[in-house]
Amino acid sequence: MITTASIPQTTPSPSLPPVDAKEKVSQFMKQLQDTICQDLQRLDGAGKFQEDAWERPEGGGGRSRVIQDGRIFEQGGVNFSEVWGSHLPPSILVQRPEAAGHPFYATGVSMVLHPRNPYIPTVHLNYRYFEAGPVWWFGGGIDLTPYYPFAEDVIHFHNTLKQACENHHPEYYPTFKRWCDEYFYLKHRQETRGVGGIFFDYQDGQSGELYRGSDESGPAAAHSAKVGAIEGRTWDDLFQFVQSCGQAFLPAYLPIAEQRQSIEYGDRQRNFQMYRRGRYVEFNLVYDRGTIFGLQTNGRTESILMSLPPLVRWEYGYKPEPNTPEAELYETFLKPQDWVNRLVPVNE
Amino acid sequence: MITTASIPQTTPSPSLPPVDAKEKVSQFMKQLQDTICQDLQRLDGAGKFQEDAWERPEGGGGRSRVIQDGRIFEQGGVNFSEVWGSHLPPSILVQRPEAAGHPFYATGVSMVLHPRNPYIPTVHLNYRYFEAGPVWWFGGGIDLTPYYPFAEDVIHFHNTLKQACENHHPEYYPTFKRWCDEYFYLKHRQETRGVGGIFFDYQDGQSGELYRGSDESGPAAAHSAKVGAIEGRTWDDLFQFVQSCGQAFLPAYLPIAEQRQSIEYGDRQRNFQMYRRGRYVEFNLVYDRGTIFGLQTNGRTESILMSLPPLVRWEYGYKPEPNTPEAELYETFLKPQDWVNRLVPVNE
Repeated sequence: MITTASIPQTTPSPSLPPVDAKEKVSQFMKQLQDTICQDLQRLDGAGKFQEDAWERPEGGGGRSRVIQDGRIFEQGGVNFSEVWGSHLPPSILVQRPEAAGHPFYATGVSMVLHPRNPYIPTVHLNYRYFEAGPVWWFGGGIDLTPYYPFAEDVIHFHNTLKQACENHHPEYYPTFKRWCDEYFYLKHRQETRGVGGIFFDYQDGQSGELYRGSDESGPAAAHSAKVGAIEGRTWDDLFQFVQSCGQAFLPAYLPIAEQRQSIEYGDRQRNFQMYRRGRYVEFNLVYDRGTIFGLQTNGRTESILMSLPPLVRWEYGYKPEPNTPEAELYETFLKPQDWVNRLVPVNE
Repeated sequence: MITTASIPQTTPSPSLPPVDAKEKVSQFMKQLQDTICQDLQRLDGAGKFQEDAWERPEGGGGRSRVIQDGRIFEQGGVNFSEVWGSHLPPSILVQRPEAAGHPFYATGVSMVLHPRNPYIPTVHLNYRYFEAGPVWWFGGGIDLTPYYPFAEDVIHFHNTLKQACENHHPEYYPTFKRWCDEYFYLKHRQETRGVGGIFFDYQDGQSGELYRGSDESGPAAAHSAKVGAIEGRTWDDLFQFVQSCGQAFLPAYLPIAEQRQSIEYGDRQRNFQMYRRGRYVEFNLVYDRGTIFGLQTNGRTESILMSLPPLVRWEYGYKPEPNTPEAELYETFLKPQDWVNRLVPVNE
């Protein structure tokens, strides 16, 4: 009998990134930005994305693309960035202590779209890749924030994401769907930000760990904490998964925007949309790790806050009138639920 | 020779609060709320404050008063609260470790006014009193956020606060003016929130400590850190000082609102006001200790977020045109400066 410790490791670990990992991922992220901008611009038909290329003094840079006053999109931003530096900030090192003392590399795409028509939901996407010393990981997600309740839109959105996930692993969708519900939760309002989608972080091939939730009290924490590890995932497995997730955005969202763009609306719908956009601001400024991290570490403020809506309202003590679409949004859509099996009563 | 430790303390320390301290302060805070609401309502002439009385399950309660859609005030809130509980949250215990393990009492008034006319500044006031075991302290301040630059308004505002301070101690105004510049600073924008005013915290008679700034990099930190202690202040001295500060609000602000209320404005001024209001939201949600503390500790969300403006705009990459009043606001008014001696060049 021999001990494994005495066997020299002659083949590279399957969980190591390939030598051209950074180029592969940043190439994909740039293409994703291109494809998304092209299709959104085609849908809009009037607005054009304007690009600002920028450099980060500490290393790297990005290209911010913004569409303003379009036919569909009142404001939207699709950012690509690729940055590096001598050390990760403490907020990330808490979750990745192995990265301490190592230089890091990060690349990703982030996007928020604020349509003008209140019947079209706001949508957010972010995918990112990190390398830092001995560790690397993928993270990100997509989530939808409707203003008016159309169950079929939400079911379509979730089904599209579920399909993208299930081509890779059956545990992905249920785990990352619940992680999304947990992450995009406004504790002070006791509401989800919208109807969720998928969210994940710290996906690597080394730990096999699927879920690393916060110790916060989101509604999905109890379930998700039980989720175990998946052994044997390679870098390629995870990169392919993230590519599928990124590519799922357009088929998940465009049909909804196309379907709802011609519904007429008035002041009532517009006022409700502007009021609900306030929740988006509250979430992004109070809870969102990326936003707070960016603001506290001298990120490019205009790119970070591109996610904020163009016109927002706050109103003291607002409550929707009973038996209205606005009330239905609160009662049903802003509570986590099993959208893809919605015809079956959910007992949780 | 005798040691001081062997002398029994037979007379109460002058720094101890009187037995009816809580009643005295809460009575003053309620009267301040009443007086402010009356005078603001008289000025507005159309809008009326609506009161919501509320109770806090853990102990205490308050009365929130809101004016909406007035002639002058698009939205404004004046809150009184008086709360108690078994322990202070960690964020306060960091600054007041002596209070650990003790029940606490806190009372105060907070106010934010968002006028409709962009030529009238937004204004904020907060005064508060804490008792917790062996310690007690007063804190608070008043600060002004103009949208259009009128130097005489700012000079009047600061002079009124300075006068209120100087009746009590010559170090109060310069120290608390700089603390205000330091506190109401948006690091990610490299701007002050407005033109400041006064701000102080942890004022007691025991330590004599005047300034306890953050370790953050506000523009006034370097100066203020040098400020020493004032010995021998009694509870009554500080209560009288806080009363003077509270009473200074109406003479500091009302003449400005009266003076500017009839200036005509158009879309340009209104758009700039709504854009600048975004900074108010960014400050309150990203930096303000009171707001973040309240949201994280199950405070009354609607009362806490009453400070947010009724209608707000964000615009990617906005910059004011050179040689406009909007540019002057950025170039001069959003940088800390010596307003009361403004005719004399300031060399700092």
